[in-house]
Amino acid sequence: MKLTVQSVMDALMKPARSLERTVDGLVFGRAEEEVRGIAVVFMPTQRALEQAAGLGANLVIAHEGAFYSHADQTGSSSAGPVYETKKRLILEAGMSLFRFHDYIHKYEPDLVTEGLVHELGWERFVVKRRPEAAIAELPPASLKAIAEVAKERLGIPYIRTLGDPEQRCAKAAVLVGYRGGGGVTIPLFEEEDVDLVVYGEGPEWETPEYVRDALAQGRKKGVIVLGHAESEAPGMRLLARRLQEAFPQIPVHSLQNEPLFQMM
Amino acid sequence: MKLTVQSVMDALMKPARSLERTVDGLVFGRAEEEVRGIAVVFMPTQRALEQAAGLGANLVIAHEGAFYSHADQTGSSSAGPVYETKKRLILEAGMSLFRFHDYIHKYEPDLVTEGLVHELGWERFVVKRRPEAAIAELPPASLKAIAEVAKERLGIPYIRTLGDPEQRCAKAAVLVGYRGGGGVTIPLFEEEDVDLVVYGEGPEWETPEYVRDALAQGRKKGVIVLGHAESEAPGMRLLARRLQEAFPQIPVHSLQNEPLFQMM
Repeated sequence: MKLTVQSVMDALMKPARSLERTVDGLVFGRAEEEVRGIAVVFMPTQRALEQAAGLGANLVIAHEGAFYSHADQTGSSSAGPVYETKKRLILEAGMSLFRFHDYIHKYEPDLVTEGLVHELGWERFVVKRRPEAAIAELPPASLKAIAEVAKERLGIPYIRTLGDPEQRCAKAAVLVGYRGGGGVTIPLFEEEDVDLVVYGEGPEWETPEYVRDALAQGRKKGVIVLGHAESEAPGMRLLARRLQEAFPQIPVHSLQNEPLFQMM
Repeated sequence: MKLTVQSVMDALMKPARSLERTVDGLVFGRAEEEVRGIAVVFMPTQRALEQAAGLGANLVIAHEGAFYSHADQTGSSSAGPVYETKKRLILEAGMSLFRFHDYIHKYEPDLVTEGLVHELGWERFVVKRRPEAAIAELPPASLKAIAEVAKERLGIPYIRTLGDPEQRCAKAAVLVGYRGGGGVTIPLFEEEDVDLVVYGEGPEWETPEYVRDALAQGRKKGVIVLGHAESEAPGMRLLARRLQEAFPQIPVHSLQNEPLFQMM
């Protein structure tokens, strides 16, 4: 029996409750197309799409949008050579592109958060799962030691932190993507009494400034900023493994984006 | 004649056209209070406010909010020990806190952008001033060389960049604060044909991903991400100098926030 794009999408969206508003869906391609190979990636970059085409994967499952915007899925609001070249690649390869963002975050627990917790090696330390964060009671270690572990396990060349590198951290909140805002993290510091938040990305004037003031007031708090991609790629790697188990007859490729920035 | 908080605010807001909606205004203190000293700072941190109090500056002019939020000026939406300690400092010192964000960006040209252009040493290269960006035709130099100049002149210990370090940049857009979004920068790449954008902060999935794709397509583009504070502190330093000229009878202190993050 042939596996269609629609049946893969159905399987992926089934574990989450249905959402009225979502960015998720088939952006390019046809739902009735037969799937010959799947490529899973955090960001469907020009390079990742070329890799997928080269691997014969005609269904790409990507967490973020292809056109530098959370909401503009097809790049229709802009026309320029970068957009046109990328669209031509997608259309000429005849690939289906499935944006899979909101539903995977609505898995219980959030599969993107689970992926990060897993790669950090913190599953056995998780004491609470909130919709936006996993709370982990860690074997007490210095902020520096925890940052080094995160760098090594996630393969991140550098990490931005706030706090005394030697300060002891014993309770952490783990947040993926753009959940680093103060409205999300400050309640975790104040209600869950975490001494460390680890997040992907967030406004610089919110969480980091809260922690900077807390430190100036003599309160021991810390922040580790992983980067947006670095925090969510583990969830997409976990998804790729699950998909391969669910569809053993189809090759499932887990594609990796290179680090976004270089440090100078 | 005594100088009141109100007269300083009036002088600061006068150069910009009046705004219907603004976050700017007197957050703490009294408009009729006599000003004995002024402290100007990008972020009114716990430490900066303590410094201001120690210097006898009873009017603090800050670009960002004191309570980790763009809109919540007084921290009234949250109650926790970090907020309470900071509020107590402000109230016990009896200082007036003037949030000066929107109006300074509406100066013509935007004084925050001008401050950054000035500290980069690029004033003589500016060929166009748009409301959101200054466009500069630079003596061609490598991305790496330009990043090194920015680090040195702005006193930034590290800078995140995208692009080949050796690629030649000759036309740059300079954007402060959170103007690093794709909706702002992509038109500058496509309409102004800049080969470099220098900005404070922006969503990681927008501008950097556009540039990553452009690079993969063989187009020479680059990004330098200064950090939000690093991009706007120069404008506040420029403001402090102008204020001191305008009010020579009052001490005007330009306070510096330490770098927000450390790199590990």
